[in-house]
Amino acid sequence: MSDDAPARTGRRTGDSTTRDEILAAARKLFSQSGFAKSSMRAIATEAGVDVALVSYYFGSKRGLFAAAMAIPGDPVARVTAAIEGPRDQLGTRLITAFTTLWESDDAGPALHTMLRSAANDEGAAKAFGGFASDEMMPILSETVGLSEETVRAVASCIFGLALMRYLVGAPAFTSMTTQEIIDDFGPRIQAIIDL
Amino acid sequence: MSDDAPARTGRRTGDSTTRDEILAAARKLFSQSGFAKSSMRAIATEAGVDVALVSYYFGSKRGLFAAAMAIPGDPVARVTAAIEGPRDQLGTRLITAFTTLWESDDAGPALHTMLRSAANDEGAAKAFGGFASDEMMPILSETVGLSEETVRAVASCIFGLALMRYLVGAPAFTSMTTQEIIDDFGPRIQAIIDL
Repeated sequence: MSDDAPARTGRRTGDSTTRDEILAAARKLFSQSGFAKSSMRAIATEAGVDVALVSYYFGSKRGLFAAAMAIPGDPVARVTAAIEGPRDQLGTRLITAFTTLWESDDAGPALHTMLRSAANDEGAAKAFGGFASDEMMPILSETVGLSEETVRAVASCIFGLALMRYLVGAPAFTSMTTQEIIDDFGPRIQAIIDL
Repeated sequence: MSDDAPARTGRRTGDSTTRDEILAAARKLFSQSGFAKSSMRAIATEAGVDVALVSYYFGSKRGLFAAAMAIPGDPVARVTAAIEGPRDQLGTRLITAFTTLWESDDAGPALHTMLRSAANDEGAAKAFGGFASDEMMPILSETVGLSEETVRAVASCIFGLALMRYLVGAPAFTSMTTQEIIDDFGPRIQAIIDL
């Protein structure tokens, strides 16, 4: 049973199985082909259901990916929310949104697992790499008008921090409080944005 | 047999075994305690040899770490060399040194393995995290006079690039030539340095 499953229709076991089958199909296709090349339709076909049912359960491909990767909430929505506000504080808002997400009780463990998987498993790497390249990074380019080159460097700083602080646990990164990380990285990401 | 073993003294098998035993002891201690807390003396004791013999074979703890992690050459020396020169081009020299190292035929595969291990294995994470925190990053602080906060952000950008380009293989990062990466990241790392 899942909180976000639709209202029961009587075929209780059937519904739960359908949702799980869509998630399994999504994980398979995201792993095989990456995020961009795995269409909602192809995932529906793989799961043996109508594409409308995929939308019904997961809303969007992004929502489906989050569910397939078991990331609670909607990380993209949180980043999108962080983008709003004065441009000269964008660096601080971005690093605050990411560290808060990474250190949250709901999304944090799933994000750690996803990054660890991506560093190890070719399928998870394709899914995560495609998601970052095709979904997360274009939001920054399109919404705030940053160049792709700038977004690449900003994303590198954020993912490098995640690698060193959460995965590797390097003392130079774990010895900081979250607020110190935000105070340090905010102006430095801003310097990249303002270049 | 190894190219950097000392001249044979007659006890051929003995020499080769000693070097291997020191390396095994180093890997064990680096993994258990991290880079900083694993003294040359402790490694010598673990291997059952005199500490002078460790210096004789590997020169420094850094050299021993590189040998233990099977990174050919001396990555720290290459980064140190990159630091020399005009301050306003430091960003470009650093990213050039790192991408050249990461994409080299000799050190590249070992670095990929080391980063992948560090993302997975607690022992390798301790060794790599400690090496980055205690050896690589202080060089930038001390030699060029960058603040620890600046070095942390510069290192994040470089490690994030390594993660996304070499480990994850995200399309937004693998679609670039090495020169494009250098052209993109050089000025952006410089912006962090100049902040």
